[in-house]
Amino acid sequence: MSSKALALMLTLAAGPLVADEGMWLFNEIPRTTLEARYGFAPTPEQLEHLRLATVRIGRGGTGSFASAQGLVLTNHHVGLDCIQKLSTAERDLVAHGFVAKTHTEELACPDTDLSVVVSIERVTDRIEAALAGVSDPAAQEKARRTAIADLERGCKEATGLTCEVVRLFGGAVYDLYRLRRYTDVRLAFAPEIDAVRFGGDVDNFDYPRFSFDFALFRVWENGKPLAVEHHLSWQPEGVAEGEPVFAAGFPGGTQRLYTLAQMAWTRDVWLPLVMLEIVHSHDRLVAFSARGAEQERIALRDLYVRANSMKALSGLLGGLLDAQRFHAKAEREGRLRRELAARPELVARFGDPWAEIERSLVVRTEIEPRYRVLESTGRYPGRLFDIARWLVRLAEERTKADGERIPEYRESVRPLLEQRLLSPAPIHPELEEDHLTGYLRRLLGQLGPIHPAVLEVIGRHSPEEVAAELVRGTHLTDVAVRKALMGATPAEIAASTDPLIRFARALDPHARAIRERWQDEVDSINVSAWARIAQIERAVTSGDLYPDATGSLRLSFGKVAGYEEGGRPVAPFSPLSGLYQRAEERGGRPPYTVAATLSRLRGELPGASPVTFVAKLDSTGGNSGSPVVDREMRLVGVLFDGNLWTLANPMLYDETQARTISVDVRAMLLALTRIYPAAHLAEEIVGEAP
Amino acid sequence: MSSKALALMLTLAAGPLVADEGMWLFNEIPRTTLEARYGFAPTPEQLEHLRLATVRIGRGGTGSFASAQGLVLTNHHVGLDCIQKLSTAERDLVAHGFVAKTHTEELACPDTDLSVVVSIERVTDRIEAALAGVSDPAAQEKARRTAIADLERGCKEATGLTCEVVRLFGGAVYDLYRLRRYTDVRLAFAPEIDAVRFGGDVDNFDYPRFSFDFALFRVWENGKPLAVEHHLSWQPEGVAEGEPVFAAGFPGGTQRLYTLAQMAWTRDVWLPLVMLEIVHSHDRLVAFSARGAEQERIALRDLYVRANSMKALSGLLGGLLDAQRFHAKAEREGRLRRELAARPELVARFGDPWAEIERSLVVRTEIEPRYRVLESTGRYPGRLFDIARWLVRLAEERTKADGERIPEYRESVRPLLEQRLLSPAPIHPELEEDHLTGYLRRLLGQLGPIHPAVLEVIGRHSPEEVAAELVRGTHLTDVAVRKALMGATPAEIAASTDPLIRFARALDPHARAIRERWQDEVDSINVSAWARIAQIERAVTSGDLYPDATGSLRLSFGKVAGYEEGGRPVAPFSPLSGLYQRAEERGGRPPYTVAATLSRLRGELPGASPVTFVAKLDSTGGNSGSPVVDREMRLVGVLFDGNLWTLANPMLYDETQARTISVDVRAMLLALTRIYPAAHLAEEIVGEAP
Repeated sequence: MSSKALALMLTLAAGPLVADEGMWLFNEIPRTTLEARYGFAPTPEQLEHLRLATVRIGRGGTGSFASAQGLVLTNHHVGLDCIQKLSTAERDLVAHGFVAKTHTEELACPDTDLSVVVSIERVTDRIEAALAGVSDPAAQEKARRTAIADLERGCKEATGLTCEVVRLFGGAVYDLYRLRRYTDVRLAFAPEIDAVRFGGDVDNFDYPRFSFDFALFRVWENGKPLAVEHHLSWQPEGVAEGEPVFAAGFPGGTQRLYTLAQMAWTRDVWLPLVMLEIVHSHDRLVAFSARGAEQERIALRDLYVRANSMKALSGLLGGLLDAQRFHAKAEREGRLRRELAARPELVARFGDPWAEIERSLVVRTEIEPRYRVLESTGRYPGRLFDIARWLVRLAEERTKADGERIPEYRESVRPLLEQRLLSPAPIHPELEEDHLTGYLRRLLGQLGPIHPAVLEVIGRHSPEEVAAELVRGTHLTDVAVRKALMGATPAEIAASTDPLIRFARALDPHARAIRERWQDEVDSINVSAWARIAQIERAVTSGDLYPDATGSLRLSFGKVAGYEEGGRPVAPFSPLSGLYQRAEERGGRPPYTVAATLSRLRGELPGASPVTFVAKLDSTGGNSGSPVVDREMRLVGVLFDGNLWTLANPMLYDETQARTISVDVRAMLLALTRIYPAAHLAEEIVGEAP
Repeated sequence: MSSKALALMLTLAAGPLVADEGMWLFNEIPRTTLEARYGFAPTPEQLEHLRLATVRIGRGGTGSFASAQGLVLTNHHVGLDCIQKLSTAERDLVAHGFVAKTHTEELACPDTDLSVVVSIERVTDRIEAALAGVSDPAAQEKARRTAIADLERGCKEATGLTCEVVRLFGGAVYDLYRLRRYTDVRLAFAPEIDAVRFGGDVDNFDYPRFSFDFALFRVWENGKPLAVEHHLSWQPEGVAEGEPVFAAGFPGGTQRLYTLAQMAWTRDVWLPLVMLEIVHSHDRLVAFSARGAEQERIALRDLYVRANSMKALSGLLGGLLDAQRFHAKAEREGRLRRELAARPELVARFGDPWAEIERSLVVRTEIEPRYRVLESTGRYPGRLFDIARWLVRLAEERTKADGERIPEYRESVRPLLEQRLLSPAPIHPELEEDHLTGYLRRLLGQLGPIHPAVLEVIGRHSPEEVAAELVRGTHLTDVAVRKALMGATPAEIAASTDPLIRFARALDPHARAIRERWQDEVDSINVSAWARIAQIERAVTSGDLYPDATGSLRLSFGKVAGYEEGGRPVAPFSPLSGLYQRAEERGGRPPYTVAATLSRLRGELPGASPVTFVAKLDSTGGNSGSPVVDREMRLVGVLFDGNLWTLANPMLYDETQARTISVDVRAMLLALTRIYPAAHLAEEIVGEAP
């Protein structure tokens, strides 16, 4: 398959794939590689069991069924969005944790959904058939989108399931995923935040690590806990050093297909811009939190997300600045391009996709700052503005044929949009105002004071004034108002006097214009070029191959193994005693605050018990909450992070030092049975009183 | 001269120079143009008088002698650095203003210096002689710097004056400026901040405008007010619409010689990066100010500077996004390049400097983010870090020959460095800590957590912790400590245990390395290419020409004239009544707070009296405080700002809407005699009781 060529491109220098590399398709696992390295490969039945026991949480995390009664294990930081929305100043579940003693005490998340991949079907031929006779990249891209929308709608009508066509290998392969979606998700267990965030942003992406970053939710259906056939058994003994493990999950996106020019562009243009945006938003949130305890509480998750992004991107930069890794990439790409040049029949067929990408980067450099501030998801304008934009766009997009809509407004993703629009989760006006102010400041800075969009929405006022008036005047905090507007026509939206709707409408033409340029002059060029690079690879090499992560279900594998840092070995397990020791070394100052419960129990808990472990699992953002299983598919941990060297994973895999970090199953059982009063949940999971 | 070619490049499309454009050399004023437009040109005697009455304030502002006893007029915002340093929580001269009733009540600024241009000499031949036989751009640049250092040192030894060789027309022309420097500068008068900042950041760069942005200082020498021969007479009647005026000043820098590629690069790469840095630093300062009244007081000037930069750069972006102006630049450059291509003898002699610049931009894109955070002046690390770096570098640079040093450490600028290092101005540890924290966050973000510099100076700590420890542990707040270290050898600096010295030393090799790349692979290429572009211009055109601003003394001219905005006329004068009216329209909410004194006197002051006026003077940052004089060299105003359209002045001049804004001489006399108790100063200036 075309997939084969691609991963080989990444390893041309090293010959065949020998590393624990890859986020593999469940319908195309590297059986040969696995057998060569470990002497076995999971059976189709095992793979099906793992797939059906793994859940996607919203759009950015993973979990796994942990019992026959619908219990779901994930990371605390994945569940934090719900946990924070369930909290109030009086009952702060983030600070103090939560244990539901009975099913009825479980708390329903306001807007969390889970999905299970029911089946996967290859549909490349059906997409390619729609492109017959179309040669312009932008027109091809439009044709592809129409074909994708048609397939998804047809599938949904036939099955009632969520249907998603996934573009793989930059567009050389398409798979149709059918997912069953659950929307009644309830919180069953969460530890105290100090037990989760010990070491905070300083230790984030670092190792050794002492974090109980897990939580338990339960899926309900028709007023009852969901009966689940495929759930993972937990292995109370854990896993040993050197053993192979697997992780199933929904890694959000990698760019290993990026050309050298795109990597340099990312390093030199994109990252500095984006990192400063994040630093700016982060430091505003720090200042907001300093206003008082309640402000600190409501800004907490946004702050974590920003701090996490900042560290992740600066780690990616670290990887891209690594001359050795960059050189290796240059070697591989150079070799492939020379092989292509030596075969005129391939040149005639595929052209020079690298040169096309280089040209598109000139356009992208020009539009990127404005694209980011007007259209990208990294704008951080706050929830209210997002809601306003969704409503404004929904009204307009609904007048179009499904395949011609902006993808986020296609019928196939309608439930997600509705869930977001109708979420009863609390909206904090003070925080919204601060987000909007920061956004308006960046808008003013990036577009300049005499840009038509700025003149329209800010004019002679200050960003602070505009934000205050928008938040004070809007009624979009009211779910009923949003519900009414969800059915509005464009004319009704145009007649709305809600200031935030008017604001979103005023920005919309500018945002759409820059998006269109981005799609036609950047994205469609990339898609066309990447697909041909993958095809060129296929023509000149052979072997097992995996595509870039796309948010679709993947399987990773690798050994539990330590690594070296600065010439010293780092052990693969972090024992509980290390937590107390580190806190002492740092005088217990934040972020090394020992959680109240852990502090009280010191001396009573087994110090040698591992809290976390590292393994050579290839992973990236979106893998958070992934079940980590042994060769018998028994759960031995929950993936929650990677060390510093994994931060370049999106573009450059490294096996010498990059390691993913998981909470050890033994730490989770310890937490449920001896740290928090949740033995009943442990019993539900392991099937006996532990 | 080569100068001629250059400005014509800027007006090729329009034919000969017809606009009120240009920041002209005092030794090369556009006599022909002036006579054609206005029927007269200043006489050599008038020019000499204006030159000797104009003063440079520090390195970033302008002023003018206003009396025979050394009184100096400038902007309040230029003097604010001193005024703030003289203030304390108990005696806040910024908030409440200041009037010295007698000479002895005047307050000495801790570290302000003024300079007067005594003479100007052309030295192009002497610089070019040093380049004989050197062809590599980086080597040429080194030879040039040695020649410049030699010239400056020789001049200083011979005259005792401050001697500065100024590079003009991108390096086609060199002039030697001799300046007399005064360091005993005392505050005589300042209005309340609310009278200066009415309209704040919202009205900044806008018009109509109601600001008393002026202050009076006095130069002392040998314990007495300086006796001044050349001071400007004030014209109490002011100036009328349509009259030509002149401004003398020290505009800091323009880039009108930038190629189209450089302008696009500035728009697409540089501005987004820099604007986000400023937004970040600005918003941290806002949060810092929110901690309390004293924090607000000590952060005030930094905050203004940041807000001003932000608006200035976003205005520049606005200009660069203006398709029409950008198109005009493309036309001009295209025409010049076609003319060159048609003359093979020019191609053989000059090569293709535009292509060389384009290639250097690839390098610059790569290094810019790291150059900025490690070496540029836009890092905002706080005063203490600047001091530490100066000391570390001074020790090392002093071991080198003068011409081989980093320019800021040459003997010719030693007095400036000493003044900064030994300034007794208060240093606020809490503010320093905040600056350093923000700087470390940007450093971490831009370099990544595993960059060797970051591992050395931050390691596993948080930026907050590192900043707190640096500020807590350093002794550089003590002037005596700094004085001792000014004479230190590199070995003594290496042995210092001061944490901030160690910090600066740890960063220094990384900063020097990136600076060296910038000099060799960007700056020297640009200098060589710009000089040739100017020479190509000279070869194909003729006419009056002015060089880009470089911080050296310049003369601008233009009519007092209103303009159109959105189809409506904007009048050239802003009367005092408009201030009260605008405050009423905005309900007196900040930034429209009427100063206490102005509020009390409302009704008693003449509402029709102009506060400010606009004129077609070409200006840029550094012109603040410039005397604006009529055709008889009588002072009619003090330049303090430009409207939105001047913000693109650094690269693209526009005469239709761009206007500089000055405080009217009538407003200044009104303030001295009827608003504040400073009639004695007015009398000293105008020579009689007004």
